[in-house]
Amino acid sequence: MSFDIDLSLFNRKAHNPSFGSLRRTLKPEMAAKLIDFCVPVNPYFPTQAMLQSYKDDLENILKYYPDQNEPIAETLARVMGLNSDAVVMANGSTEAITWIDHLFIKESIATPIPTFGRWTDQPLETGKRLEVFLRLPENNFALNTAEFAAFVRKTRSRTAAICNPNNPTGALLSKEEVLDLCRDLADLDLVIVDESFIDFSEIEGVPTIAKEAQSLKNVIVVKSLGKNFGMHGLRFGYTVSNPRIAGALRHKLPHWNVNAIGERVIQDLEANAAAYEASRRQVIADRQYLFGQLQKVEGIRVFPSKANFVFFRCPDIVSGARLRDLLIEKEGLFVRECGNKVGSSSQYVRVAANPRPHTDRLIGALERSIKRLTVEGALAASVGSSHSQQSVPSI
Amino acid sequence: MSFDIDLSLFNRKAHNPSFGSLRRTLKPEMAAKLIDFCVPVNPYFPTQAMLQSYKDDLENILKYYPDQNEPIAETLARVMGLNSDAVVMANGSTEAITWIDHLFIKESIATPIPTFGRWTDQPLETGKRLEVFLRLPENNFALNTAEFAAFVRKTRSRTAAICNPNNPTGALLSKEEVLDLCRDLADLDLVIVDESFIDFSEIEGVPTIAKEAQSLKNVIVVKSLGKNFGMHGLRFGYTVSNPRIAGALRHKLPHWNVNAIGERVIQDLEANAAAYEASRRQVIADRQYLFGQLQKVEGIRVFPSKANFVFFRCPDIVSGARLRDLLIEKEGLFVRECGNKVGSSSQYVRVAANPRPHTDRLIGALERSIKRLTVEGALAASVGSSHSQQSVPSI
Repeated sequence: MSFDIDLSLFNRKAHNPSFGSLRRTLKPEMAAKLIDFCVPVNPYFPTQAMLQSYKDDLENILKYYPDQNEPIAETLARVMGLNSDAVVMANGSTEAITWIDHLFIKESIATPIPTFGRWTDQPLETGKRLEVFLRLPENNFALNTAEFAAFVRKTRSRTAAICNPNNPTGALLSKEEVLDLCRDLADLDLVIVDESFIDFSEIEGVPTIAKEAQSLKNVIVVKSLGKNFGMHGLRFGYTVSNPRIAGALRHKLPHWNVNAIGERVIQDLEANAAAYEASRRQVIADRQYLFGQLQKVEGIRVFPSKANFVFFRCPDIVSGARLRDLLIEKEGLFVRECGNKVGSSSQYVRVAANPRPHTDRLIGALERSIKRLTVEGALAASVGSSHSQQSVPSI
Repeated sequence: MSFDIDLSLFNRKAHNPSFGSLRRTLKPEMAAKLIDFCVPVNPYFPTQAMLQSYKDDLENILKYYPDQNEPIAETLARVMGLNSDAVVMANGSTEAITWIDHLFIKESIATPIPTFGRWTDQPLETGKRLEVFLRLPENNFALNTAEFAAFVRKTRSRTAAICNPNNPTGALLSKEEVLDLCRDLADLDLVIVDESFIDFSEIEGVPTIAKEAQSLKNVIVVKSLGKNFGMHGLRFGYTVSNPRIAGALRHKLPHWNVNAIGERVIQDLEANAAAYEASRRQVIADRQYLFGQLQKVEGIRVFPSKANFVFFRCPDIVSGARLRDLLIEKEGLFVRECGNKVGSSSQYVRVAANPRPHTDRLIGALERSIKRLTVEGALAASVGSSHSQQSVPSI
């Protein structure tokens, strides 16, 4: 079996191609078999009943304007147990990030890396000074918040952004650690805590600081909703902060920035809270299973994760980019090679939590592919070394 | 029959409530009967086959990330016969307007009124100087472009925005008039031409300047796609300008600002071009019929329109707000009272082109309602005048 795929898609951008554009390059029978381990999506939400109701009412949903972001934020805030004046809706977390950069990041930002690409690329694109603090594989990419705070001081950064749990590594800070860091950085223009994956961190005691952020002076929590609710195609997310920051952001953002399906999903959340909770727990179980199975694959180093993905390092002789290509071409599995992330390299791969049968397919495929690439790598090294012996005569 | 409706919704905002939030206040059997004359939407697009394919594939569409705005803009530009480096995608025309204000409107803007609310409210919200040039009912709200250009000079405005055709009046400028105006204002920072309704202006020879804007120095054409394609709920629109302006805008806008259904619709446009063209012609025919029928309603003054709506003035004795409320409560028809638009008043009402049976219902309802409100108005005036005679003794 071979997935006859256009790998030039990967050369186009710093970001990976969308799963959709990848599938469109495939023959339909192959496209249907492609499994996505690249985008960490909740596969158990929305419920089939929710989906069916969107299908039934799709014409009305598409035809008519949604409400403005403010009333939609009120609904979401009620469901989340937050104050409505603290919540601002966005067209995906990237819209929030873009406007936060535009309005609040005046000249500099410090952030631990590797991280979500937008936290490094967005401020660079608008000419801000970016100060990066390296998370280290030898510490499982854990962040020492005191050291990071000292780094922020040393670099005189006016804003700081962290992801909790971290993307792409899955490293998690406790709630106390995050609040300590916020206290340490209380004199900054802004401290951003991106909690886009936090629902998949712990079954009990999710360490979100969303409630606390409502009364902190300079903290904004950013959260994607597409990731939680398994609908990346929708583009919705939100921020939580004190009413002053929220008001400034709400005032500047386009007022009709949430589409009508996003609005409808938010209206449906309360009635589907139990189904979402069950989906969240299942994703956590899937990640735990994925982590356990990956640990059995020879040659890779797997890092502990509290998100709905797991990060691992390929053997030195195997390139993550080659592994990704081989997994797509021969196995129909799409993983995230992390060579285009600042602070990562092509040795690192992120795989999204998936239902167990998919994970089992991934594990078998990984074992085969890594074995094959290890042999190829060893062969190339030996040819290369004999070649170099020929071309550079020993003296 | 009475539509038991929460009219307090109208007191909330400068903008009207969404059709959806209005319907949610109704009993289901009444909600199904409510007809929308408020939002000018193309009722003949998307085709049933397109809708069905979105329903069939909804789970995939919602689950996976769309592409970035740049490749989506490339697809749209190809379909529209434009250069891909001239086109920028937006999350609805309001996102384009918000960012244009943010990036290019430095201190002042001149615009003819009445107009689309965002062209007056957006610059005011961000502290710009707004100079308004009054379109007059005695001229059918037609714009004299030479007079407007002189007004721009006199007020030393650095940017100018016009809607063609105008919203809410439907007045249209010819392509030559718009290009003349652009030439007259070639030294401004920016001239914005909002062509959101232009597809419904003429059957042949739609006076768009989108192609010309690609090589003009300081012109940007803004266009809603939701209005054309009958999908306001989607939030999509675009701008056309020279590559320098387009590049600056594209660079700053959130890169993933188009949702996956919007992306899918754009991919489907080429294959559905004939169906869209037929829908566009039918909407024009509907507007012509609506205009003709409205002219027969006693007491109102109807203004010529080249958009998919018609603007009329109520008799002096009848308030447009009362008419709107009566039409909702007693007839289940939702029209747009224009009292919250700068340069308009509560005497003015905008009604969207609808299929003929809907228009026929509207005409009958309008005749009944205006008759009733005229009688009420006359009665109130006579009571008021006898009352004032009692309280203010003649001297």
